[in-house]
Amino acid sequence: MQAEIIRVGILGAGGLGQAAAQILAQKQEMQLVAIADRSGFAFDAEGLDATAVLQASMTQGSVGYTPGAGTFTSDAIRALIERSHDVDAFFIALPNLPNDFIPGVIHNFAQAEYDGVMVDALKRTGAVELVFKLDPLLSAVGMTYITGAGATPGLLTAAAALAAQSFQEILKVEIYFGVGISNWDAYRATIREDIAHLDGFDVERVSEMTDEEIEVELDRRNGILELVNMEHADDVILEHAGIVDRKQVTVGGIVDTRSPKKPVSTNVKVTGKTFEGKMSTHVFTLGDETSMAANVCGPVFGYMKTGIWLNRRSIHGVFSSADLMPRFVQ
Amino acid sequence: MQAEIIRVGILGAGGLGQAAAQILAQKQEMQLVAIADRSGFAFDAEGLDATAVLQASMTQGSVGYTPGAGTFTSDAIRALIERSHDVDAFFIALPNLPNDFIPGVIHNFAQAEYDGVMVDALKRTGAVELVFKLDPLLSAVGMTYITGAGATPGLLTAAAALAAQSFQEILKVEIYFGVGISNWDAYRATIREDIAHLDGFDVERVSEMTDEEIEVELDRRNGILELVNMEHADDVILEHAGIVDRKQVTVGGIVDTRSPKKPVSTNVKVTGKTFEGKMSTHVFTLGDETSMAANVCGPVFGYMKTGIWLNRRSIHGVFSSADLMPRFVQ
Repeated sequence: MQAEIIRVGILGAGGLGQAAAQILAQKQEMQLVAIADRSGFAFDAEGLDATAVLQASMTQGSVGYTPGAGTFTSDAIRALIERSHDVDAFFIALPNLPNDFIPGVIHNFAQAEYDGVMVDALKRTGAVELVFKLDPLLSAVGMTYITGAGATPGLLTAAAALAAQSFQEILKVEIYFGVGISNWDAYRATIREDIAHLDGFDVERVSEMTDEEIEVELDRRNGILELVNMEHADDVILEHAGIVDRKQVTVGGIVDTRSPKKPVSTNVKVTGKTFEGKMSTHVFTLGDETSMAANVCGPVFGYMKTGIWLNRRSIHGVFSSADLMPRFVQ
Repeated sequence: MQAEIIRVGILGAGGLGQAAAQILAQKQEMQLVAIADRSGFAFDAEGLDATAVLQASMTQGSVGYTPGAGTFTSDAIRALIERSHDVDAFFIALPNLPNDFIPGVIHNFAQAEYDGVMVDALKRTGAVELVFKLDPLLSAVGMTYITGAGATPGLLTAAAALAAQSFQEILKVEIYFGVGISNWDAYRATIREDIAHLDGFDVERVSEMTDEEIEVELDRRNGILELVNMEHADDVILEHAGIVDRKQVTVGGIVDTRSPKKPVSTNVKVTGKTFEGKMSTHVFTLGDETSMAANVCGPVFGYMKTGIWLNRRSIHGVFSSADLMPRFVQ
């Protein structure tokens, strides 16, 4: 396979966006050319210095401070849409509260006739359903879009789709994850989404909570969030891929917001019946030392490379992580 | 996804070919229309009765006995090439001794300008390398070919390619399989290939051994074949997909030819370094109750469906199981 440089844009510069920029700094086949946050953006069609971007974002609070490439604006996404002809692919690393926020962003790119690749790491079923509905529009525009391409959904959903191959019928898919985060501050958006899954909370209520209120909630739980029967898009993604009814998919897990050590090993179990009528379970288990950032952003860029491959062969529309195998990015 | 019937041909009616026919009998999206063995073939463009084909093959010794659809000939493959315009996809379930036998069969299909899909479950590195070399020819003809699409290589190779996504660099991939077969007679070809991997044996020597000599060899080992550092195509497939140098891939396992119970759980371990510099290992483990037939033929048909999807979008040439995610076949 011939190496070619894919010019990448990142929408969002929170924990995930920053990790994504760090990863891009280590890739030969991809180059960061654009990144946006709430207060500004950094853009250079010839390639941004990822270290300078991270420095600006982490120590000064916005990528707008990036020397020579940063600009301040209240509509950084619009600014990147205007520069999107110089970007081969975007990773949408924005917090998705409410559910229709990211679908709205995609819609804006489509209206500007962006015909490259976009990849998200969306987690909620409702949000991914809205993205699937954009298929006719994105197909018409010539965009190749991959949804649910992080860890869950993403890596584990694809593993479930793969494991399903041994069976004639899938009886259940159980995803159980452990996440350890030493500093919740760096993953505010992600943890807010997790809290929205807890009994007595929802997306709206969480979006109205202050950081102090989130802090109090975490204190009350000793920093541990135990999540059961989560609304997680793995269900609709596996159903959409024709593998299993969404009701047979369960997602749960434990998030420890005060320790980088995972409280349990993240795994997916696929139970099915073979053509001979035998019941069995395949298991895919992630190594504890792999961080959420590695397990989300790695697949995101893998899927992005696959997206580029499809896009250049005129295959457009919306795909999920279970539809496509991610490609390895050097 | 709209269901459409894929007309399938199977080359070979040994253990794998028979299991493949049995599986097809349970699929709504696929239909067996052609099958060949050493002495004849069965063909019906409107669909064969899989039960009748299996009956003919298992009790009478050849698919040529299939009532109303069977024919005897010493060149059944040629006969199916002549009928290939009525076949959307072929599974090559032939024994591959010597290494260039299956590549030769593919070449014959290409020379007859077959522009459908072909899938193999080849195991040896040397054979898969020969298949990769056919890429320009198959691309020119318009064939979509997927190699190494069984279990190892296949399901486990794809799992390794997926697991690799969390890492910046892959350090090693270790495949270890357990196979339990109650009756070696049904899997003669496969077990001959396994014996060819043992110290002191090679493909040529095994091909010259009689069934009785194989039997004696199995007796000497109490029916247990322990295989280490096997020449297995997982290595070249993962290298070809740009994931890891083939030297970092090891394949070993234990085959118990006298018990259907697996002596160990088949698994693949992928060890890598994340972008933060952390070493870790992801593990994918197959349920013990899944048979070799289920783990080989399930992925084969999944990849076949993916192959049809690519073929109808004019994507041709040779792909491996690590390049593509198999699709679930209803």
